[in-house]
Amino acid sequence: MRPSGRNLDEMRPISIETGVTKHAEGSCLIRCGDTHVLCTATIEERVPPFMRNSGQGWVTAEYGMLPRSTTSRMRREATQGKQGGRTVEIQRLIGRALRAGVDRVALGERQITVDCDVIQADGGTRCASITGGWVALRLAVNKLLKAGDIVSDPLLSNVAAVSCGIYAGQPVLDLDYPEDSEAGVDGNFIMLANGRLIETQMSAEGATYSRDQMNALLDLAEKGVAELVAAQNAAVI
Amino acid sequence: MRPSGRNLDEMRPISIETGVTKHAEGSCLIRCGDTHVLCTATIEERVPPFMRNSGQGWVTAEYGMLPRSTTSRMRREATQGKQGGRTVEIQRLIGRALRAGVDRVALGERQITVDCDVIQADGGTRCASITGGWVALRLAVNKLLKAGDIVSDPLLSNVAAVSCGIYAGQPVLDLDYPEDSEAGVDGNFIMLANGRLIETQMSAEGATYSRDQMNALLDLAEKGVAELVAAQNAAVI
Amino acid sequence: MRPSGRNLDEMRPISIETGVTKHAEGSCLIRCGDTHVLCTATIEERVPPFMRNSGQGWVTAEYGMLPRSTTSRMRREATQGKQGGRTVEIQRLIGRALRAGVDRVALGERQITVDCDVIQADGGTRCASITGGWVALRLAVNKLLKAGDIVSDPLLSNVAAVSCGIYAGQPVLDLDYPEDSEAGVDGNFIMLANGRLIETQMSAEGATYSRDQMNALLDLAEKGVAELVAAQNAAVI
Amino acid sequence: MRPSGRNLDEMRPISIETGVTKHAEGSCLIRCGDTHVLCTATIEERVPPFMRNSGQGWVTAEYGMLPRSTTSRMRREATQGKQGGRTVEIQRLIGRALRAGVDRVALGERQITVDCDVIQADGGTRCASITGGWVALRLAVNKLLKAGDIVSDPLLSNVAAVSCGIYAGQPVLDLDYPEDSEAGVDGNFIMLANGRLIETQMSAEGATYSRDQMNALLDLAEKGVAELVAAQNAAVI
Amino acid sequence: MRPSGRNLDEMRPISIETGVTKHAEGSCLIRCGDTHVLCTATIEERVPPFMRNSGQGWVTAEYGMLPRSTTSRMRREATQGKQGGRTVEIQRLIGRALRAGVDRVALGERQITVDCDVIQADGGTRCASITGGWVALRLAVNKLLKAGDIVSDPLLSNVAAVSCGIYAGQPVLDLDYPEDSEAGVDGNFIMLANGRLIETQMSAEGATYSRDQMNALLDLAEKGVAELVAAQNAAVI
Amino acid sequence: MRPSGRNLDEMRPISIETGVTKHAEGSCLIRCGDTHVLCTATIEERVPPFMRNSGQGWVTAEYGMLPRSTTSRMRREATQGKQGGRTVEIQRLIGRALRAGVDRVALGERQITVDCDVIQADGGTRCASITGGWVALRLAVNKLLKAGDIVSDPLLSNVAAVSCGIYAGQPVLDLDYPEDSEAGVDGNFIMLANGRLIETQMSAEGATYSRDQMNALLDLAEKGVAELVAAQNAAVI
Repeated sequence: MRPSGRNLDEMRPISIETGVTKHAEGSCLIRCGDTHVLCTATIEERVPPFMRNSGQGWVTAEYGMLPRSTTSRMRREATQGKQGGRTVEIQRLIGRALRAGVDRVALGERQITVDCDVIQADGGTRCASITGGWVALRLAVNKLLKAGDIVSDPLLSNVAAVSCGIYAGQPVLDLDYPEDSEAGVDGNFIMLANGRLIETQMSAEGATYSRDQMNALLDLAEKGVAELVAAQNAAVI
Repeated sequence: MRPSGRNLDEMRPISIETGVTKHAEGSCLIRCGDTHVLCTATIEERVPPFMRNSGQGWVTAEYGMLPRSTTSRMRREATQGKQGGRTVEIQRLIGRALRAGVDRVALGERQITVDCDVIQADGGTRCASITGGWVALRLAVNKLLKAGDIVSDPLLSNVAAVSCGIYAGQPVLDLDYPEDSEAGVDGNFIMLANGRLIETQMSAEGATYSRDQMNALLDLAEKGVAELVAAQNAAVI
Repeated sequence: MRPSGRNLDEMRPISIETGVTKHAEGSCLIRCGDTHVLCTATIEERVPPFMRNSGQGWVTAEYGMLPRSTTSRMRREATQGKQGGRTVEIQRLIGRALRAGVDRVALGERQITVDCDVIQADGGTRCASITGGWVALRLAVNKLLKAGDIVSDPLLSNVAAVSCGIYAGQPVLDLDYPEDSEAGVDGNFIMLANGRLIETQMSAEGATYSRDQMNALLDLAEKGVAELVAAQNAAVI
Repeated sequence: MRPSGRNLDEMRPISIETGVTKHAEGSCLIRCGDTHVLCTATIEERVPPFMRNSGQGWVTAEYGMLPRSTTSRMRREATQGKQGGRTVEIQRLIGRALRAGVDRVALGERQITVDCDVIQADGGTRCASITGGWVALRLAVNKLLKAGDIVSDPLLSNVAAVSCGIYAGQPVLDLDYPEDSEAGVDGNFIMLANGRLIETQMSAEGATYSRDQMNALLDLAEKGVAELVAAQNAAVI
Repeated sequence: MRPSGRNLDEMRPISIETGVTKHAEGSCLIRCGDTHVLCTATIEERVPPFMRNSGQGWVTAEYGMLPRSTTSRMRREATQGKQGGRTVEIQRLIGRALRAGVDRVALGERQITVDCDVIQADGGTRCASITGGWVALRLAVNKLLKAGDIVSDPLLSNVAAVSCGIYAGQPVLDLDYPEDSEAGVDGNFIMLANGRLIETQMSAEGATYSRDQMNALLDLAEKGVAELVAAQNAAVI
Repeated sequence: MRPSGRNLDEMRPISIETGVTKHAEGSCLIRCGDTHVLCTATIEERVPPFMRNSGQGWVTAEYGMLPRSTTSRMRREATQGKQGGRTVEIQRLIGRALRAGVDRVALGERQITVDCDVIQADGGTRCASITGGWVALRLAVNKLLKAGDIVSDPLLSNVAAVSCGIYAGQPVLDLDYPEDSEAGVDGNFIMLANGRLIETQMSAEGATYSRDQMNALLDLAEKGVAELVAAQNAAVI
C-alpha cells in the first residue's frame, strides 16, 4: 500500500557514516532512505551572552537545505536575505531536542553548534537532522572527554526522532516525501533512548485526529526510535 | 500550590469582547486572565499566488506583540528588520489551526487574514490568539453569509487552544507566565469543539515526559477547550 | 459643512484612560473621536551611547499602526523588513516633541521610551500619540518621583498636539480622516500648556497657503491644545 | 555676531551651475556658501503603480550625502542596508515641495525623479536640494517642451527654500552649520516665487518659540526666497 | 619545500564523482585534495528578464560554503541576511567562466543554474567549483540532448580552472590552504580545453609581481588545466 | 576606427583637480574623458578589529555611483537595502590595489578610508577610482607627515590602473563606454610606478583570448599607467 512497498511499521534503510569532514570536531552523513543530511558539531570555548558566567554550556543548531536538495530548485536562503519561517522553526526544534539530552553543567561553559545541511531531501529531514545531529554531538563530546577538557559525560542519553502519519487512512512509520505530501495528519516524535518523550508535534492540514490515532502513531514512533538509537550506537562505537 | 491559587484544572477567567475596531470585518479582544490579545479578521477578494484559480479560499494569520506587552520592554520587530523565529513559528501555527476548521471550497476564492496583536502578555498568548482569532474569523464569515457572498457556512467547527504543563510535578491547566517560566514540560493543544485534535505540541526544556503524563495533559486540555468553546459561542451569538 | 457635523473650531470628543497595561511604568489609551492610540512609557536605567556620562536623561518614542487599524489592511511593518518613511518621520516627531517639555538634567541618566501604537485610525494619529504619549510619560515620571529616584520634577509643562487644515476653503480644527484626505493644506501644531510652540509643520499637497491662513490655523490650534491640556490634567490627577 | 560675519538677514553667496552631467535630462550644482549639492532630473515614460492610468505625472526625489561631505565621515547608507530616518524625511520633503509647483495633468503620465546628492555640507542641505532640485526639474521640463512631448508648461512657479532660526537670541537668515548646531529653534520655509507657502517646518530642540518669533523668521524667509528665485531664474535662462 | 611535499608543478589528486544527487539534472562531487565541492546543475525552462525573447539561453552560478567547511566555523550567510562580498565575487566569476564555453543560441531560451557548495575547504574552492561546475553542466546538457530538447551541442569546450602562486619565492601549481594563506601573489586561471584564456585574476596582497613571474604562473596553469580537462572527460563519458 | 577617433594606444584626456572638498584630509576630482570620479580620503585614529594591536595601519575603500551618473538612471543602492555584487567587487579591488603601495607599519595603527563616488560614468570607473584614490591617499598622508604624526613616508610608490581590451579585433588602450560595451575581452591592469603588477583581471564575456593577446594588452597598459603616474605626480606637487 505504501508507495515504497514498505510495511506500515517499516523504517527506510538507515546509514550513518562518521568522520566525513576533517575540520569539524564531530561529523556524520546520515542517510534515511533518500534523505541525506550532513551533520557537523563545532565546539567553541564561549557561550551566548545570556549564558555567560552561568557555569553551564549551550548546545544550539542550524539547519539548511542545499538549493537542489529538492525536486525543483529552491532559492538559496542567503540570496533571499533571510532564513525562511520553516527553516527557523526546524533549527529551533533541533536545538531544543539535543539540549534535552545534555547535562549542561557537566558540559561546562562552552558551546556546541550542530549544523545540519540537507544534501538530498525525500521527507523527514528534521528527524534525520536530530538523529544525525546527536551522532555529531556525541563525537564532539567524545573528543572533549578524551582530551580531558571535561570529566564526566554530559550526554545523558541518545536523542533520536522519527515522523509518523496517517497515510491512506493507516498509521505508518517514517514518512517519505510521497507519503508526507499526501498525509492529512503527521507528527514528529523525539525521544530519549528509553522512550521518554522530549517533543511531540502532531499536526493536521485540512484534517483532524483522535486520541486513539495519536496513540497508534506513538506506538510506531517508539519502534522507530529504538531502531535509530541502535544505528546511532553502532556508528559511534 | 499554583501561584495564582487556582485549582490544578482551573482556567483563568475568560472574557471575549467583540466589535472592538470599526474597520475590521471581524474583531475581538480576548482576555485569558492577564493575557489580552486583539484579534481582527480582514477579508480580501484575492488569494495568494499558490491558490489562484483553485476555487478555494485561504485563511492565514499574523502575530505580534506590542513592545511593552511584556514585563520588560521588547524591541519592536519592525525596527529589527524582521520577525523573530518565535513570532514566525506562532503565526504559522495560528494559520494552520484556523484552516483546520474551514471548508475552503465553501469559502470561495478569497482570503481572510487574522491578525493577533498581544496588548498584554501573561503566558499562553498563542493559545489566546487561536481562540480569539477564531471568534474574529467567525464574525467576518458571518458578514459574508449575511451579505450573500457565500451560501453555505465554511466554518466546520469552533477551533480553540489551551496550554497545559507539568508544574511543580503536577499536571496543570492553562499556564500563566509564572508557571510557564518554571514548567519543565508544557504543551499547546488545539482542538475542534468535539475534542478532535488539530495540533499537539508538547516540549520539554531540560526535561522529558512519559506517555502517561502526556495523556494527563490531554485530559486537562479537553476540559479547557470545552470551556473556551462555550465562551466563544457566547461571544458570537 | 464638516462631514461629522462639527463646528469649524470644534474638537472631537477626547477620552484618556490611564493604567491600561499592567507592565508599563505609565500607560494610557487616548481616544480622539475614532482615533485610538495605546501609549506606554518604559523606564530604563541606561541611556543611548551618545548620552552616556552626560549626566542627562533621554526621552524617545516609537510609533506603529496595527495592520487593521485602517480602513483597508496595511502590511505589517515587521514582515516588510523595515519601518516605512512615514513611520520613521512620525516617531522622530513624537520624540522631539516630548523632549521639548523635559528637563533632562533633572531626569538623570535614564531613558524613557514612549511607544504609541494605533489601535484604530481616523486621522490625527500623530497628534493623538503626542498628547497621549505625554500622559504616559507623566505617569512614569510620577512613579520615579514617588519612589524617590528623582527629586525635582523633570516635566516642565504639558505637551500636546492638534492638527488643523483648510477644508472646503475653511480653516477647521482637529481633522478627521474624511477631512484629512480632502484638505489641500494641513498642519500639525505642537505646544506647551502656555501656548508656546514646539513644532509647526504645515504642508500643502497640490496647493499653497498664505501667511493669513497660517495664522488662522494657529488660532484654532491654540484653542484645541488648551482643551487637550485640560483633558491630560484631568487624566493624570 | 554671526560666526561668518554676515548680517542677520544676509544670505550666503549663491551659485547655480547648470548642465554639470551629460546624461541627466536636467542638472545643476548648487552652492549655498560651503553647502554644495548636485541635483539631477531624470525623465521616465512611466509612473508609479498608484498613478497608472490617471492621466497625471509624478515628481519624486531622492537625497543622499556622500560619506565625506561632512566634517567627520558618515557611514555610507548603502553599506548600512537602509536609508536613515533623516534621509527618508528629507527626500519626502523635497518631493512634496517640488510637486506643489507642478501641474501634473500638464506633465502627462511620466515621472521625473530629482536626485539631490550632497557633495559638501555646511548646513541647509535640504533647502539647497529643493532650490537646486527645482532648477534641474525646470531644465528637464524645458527639454520636454522643446521636443514637443508636452504642450503647455507644467511648472506653475519657481519653488525655493531657505532655513532661518533663532541664533544667540536673534532671528537670522540662512543658517550655516555652526549656527544650525547652536540654534535652539530653526525652521525650513518652502515657498513659491510669489511668497505663498508650500511647507513650513519649525522645530525646537530643547526650547520653544512664540508666534512673534515665528513671524520674524517668516519675514526673513520671504527675503531669502526672493533672492533664491532670482538666482534660479538667472541660471535657467 | 611545499607543505604537502608536492613538486612545484604537481596538482593535488583529483576525483570527480558524478550523479551524486537524484534530483539535479547534472551533479558531481569534485575533490581536489581536501577541497570538496558539490556541484549541481538545474535546468529551468525560463530565462532572466533581461534575456526574454532573445532566443538565447543563460547559464548562471551560485556559490556557498557550509558553515563548518573551514577550519573554524563560519557564520551561515543565510543568518547574516546577505551573501558576503567574497561569495558574490566568486559566484559571478563561476557564471562568467561557464558562459564562455557555451553557445547560448544553441542552448535555446532556457536557464541552467550551477550551484557549487563547498563541503570541505582546503584552498582553491573557486577553481574546483568551476571545474566541477562544468561537469554538472555537461551532464545536464547531455540530458537535454538525449531528450531531443536541443539539437546541436551548446558546449563549445571544457572549461576548467586552477590557481597558481608565488610561494616561498617559487611559482607553484594548485595552491592548498597552507600555501594560499602564505603566498604574496596568487592567481586564478580559467581556460578552455585548448588553453585559450577565459579569465585571469592575479593579485598581490602586500606584494607585487613582474611580467616574467606572471608568465611562469601561466605556464603552470596550462599544465594544470590540461590535467583537469582529462579528469573532466573521464568523469562524463 | 575607435568611436572617439583616438589612436589604438591613446588615453583619454586626464585631469586631476585636488582639494575639492573642504572636510576630507585628501580629495580630488579625477576626469578620464567623460568619466568623473570624486575621491576623498578620511583618516581615522582607529583600525578595524582584525588589525587591533598589530602596530599596523589599514587602507580600505568604498565605491558608489550616483544614480544618474549613467545613461539611464540606476536605482540608488541605499534604497535597495544593499550594495550590489559589482559594487562590492570594485571596492574590494580598490582597497587591495591601494594597500599594495603602502607600508602599513610606517602608517601606524590608523585607518585611511578612500571613498570613490562616480559623478559621471563613461567606462573605466574602477580604474579612475584607483588612480584618483591614490591621489587622495597621497594628500592625506602628506598631511600626516606635515603634522609629524608619522615620520617616514608609508607610500612606497604610486598606484594607478587602466583598462585595455580587444575592440573590433584590435588591442586598444583605455576603453570608454561604447568600446567597453562591445569589447569581447577586456582587462584591468593595476601597477606601481615602475610597472610591477599589483593586480591583473582579464575576462572574456562570450569570447576567449590567447597569451599573445594578453601580452599585447599588458604592453598598452604599461604605456597608459606611465601617463597616469605622470598626471598623479603633477597633481600632488
